[in-house]
Amino acid sequence: MKYKIKIAYEGTPYAGWQNQPNRATVQEVIEEKLSYLYANQKITIRGAGRTDAGVHALGMSASFYPPSKPIISPYKLVKALNCILPNSIYIKSIQEVDLEFDARFDAVGKAYTYVLCKKNPPPGPFLCNWCYHITDNLDPEKLRKASQYLIGKHDFSSFAVALNKTKKNPVRKIYRIDVDEFENFICVTFIGKSFLYKMIRTLMGTLIHVAEGKADPVEVKKILDSKDRSKAHVTAPGNGLFLMDVFYDDETLKKFHLSRLPFFYSC
Amino acid sequence: MKYKIKIAYEGTPYAGWQNQPNRATVQEVIEEKLSYLYANQKITIRGAGRTDAGVHALGMSASFYPPSKPIISPYKLVKALNCILPNSIYIKSIQEVDLEFDARFDAVGKAYTYVLCKKNPPPGPFLCNWCYHITDNLDPEKLRKASQYLIGKHDFSSFAVALNKTKKNPVRKIYRIDVDEFENFICVTFIGKSFLYKMIRTLMGTLIHVAEGKADPVEVKKILDSKDRSKAHVTAPGNGLFLMDVFYDDETLKKFHLSRLPFFYSC
Repeated sequence: MKYKIKIAYEGTPYAGWQNQPNRATVQEVIEEKLSYLYANQKITIRGAGRTDAGVHALGMSASFYPPSKPIISPYKLVKALNCILPNSIYIKSIQEVDLEFDARFDAVGKAYTYVLCKKNPPPGPFLCNWCYHITDNLDPEKLRKASQYLIGKHDFSSFAVALNKTKKNPVRKIYRIDVDEFENFICVTFIGKSFLYKMIRTLMGTLIHVAEGKADPVEVKKILDSKDRSKAHVTAPGNGLFLMDVFYDDETLKKFHLSRLPFFYSC
Repeated sequence: MKYKIKIAYEGTPYAGWQNQPNRATVQEVIEEKLSYLYANQKITIRGAGRTDAGVHALGMSASFYPPSKPIISPYKLVKALNCILPNSIYIKSIQEVDLEFDARFDAVGKAYTYVLCKKNPPPGPFLCNWCYHITDNLDPEKLRKASQYLIGKHDFSSFAVALNKTKKNPVRKIYRIDVDEFENFICVTFIGKSFLYKMIRTLMGTLIHVAEGKADPVEVKKILDSKDRSKAHVTAPGNGLFLMDVFYDDETLKKFHLSRLPFFYSC
């Protein structure tokens, strides 16, 4: 039997999703609690991808094989996990899936939202971990223009890190980039098949540079075409980034639109 | 010279405002950073009141005597403190005040807001530390009706704890109680001269009981009149409570109205 699990988490206390030695990760905490509920049997969950330290999620997906005993229904498992997990991790749903289901390779796409807080006033102690506070005034129109150069299938070598080490194919396809404004915040939502390591945060660094008026929107196209990481600007911090959803069918992917600030979505 | 300091804090990591041995408090963290900026001279700040563990603040006020050397302007002190304080504490302003100013006794009133999250969906990992999630449907109209019995000058013995120990006068005056709804949340704002220890959280416990339909609104008046703590219901948890402001003039107090969810106020 195989279960698919959908998870929301506030990433501030974690060194990201994926297990790492000597650092608290979301995956590790969930595996530990699952193991506790299944009489200390070791359980490994396989996520749809990774998120970096401080990055949040509204809809991370993962899968695992529940041990044959004790039998715990998905409904009861959600309730039990949410009772024993820390407040920062919330299980949205668990459902039985086909044994062939693969949380990562079956995904047709992902939506990430990056939240920028406009100059004044600052976000304060409540929202500061969920946005990137920019000290210069941002022009959302320039952000919109610049982001359109990134739509489609491109070699994103300029916006990736550690490509040499991993020798990954740097070609990725971005379906859509939406720029939405809510109160004092600008949200940039990226919908694509998959993304390179730190790609969205690196894209954001350059998009912010343009939005601040420090470069023309077409600069983004020039940097993209150069395939040279040194041309791109600084990587934006992880705390502004939210994995909104992982899609397993095209219909859900196409319908996705940010309707409110990410942290305002209910679970 | 005397400085008045206005502070916002996310109370989750703290054992409240006031210094306690072996536990992190907001006061202690600010005093430590002030001392650091003033060449390790000991500085004591005097708050307008206390807040319990997990309680948040948008506008706590306090005062302290800055050492004569080094001279740091209020403007620079705000900047410097916000650079070195943890994200959970934010200094909103510092201004020079009269030497006679007393953050506690000069206050003409305080506004506290208690945030309730209505039944479904649950608040999730982002907002769970900033509201109390009620499993039964709440009727804001019943809340409004019940709260009106509390307006005015009353003996609040039924809604206080540890009165025997402190032998405090249990009479307090509540000017106004507002019930506002935002999205999935109900906010109850108490404006009064001052409040007894845990008084608002105890009032909320009983108001919630009424709002859930478990008692008639007039029950609140009966409990109040009984002056018997054992008649009141459970104390609501601290994480739903926000100290919104401490007022030093009647005009500002009268004008106060909650315009959005507390954590959505900018700093």
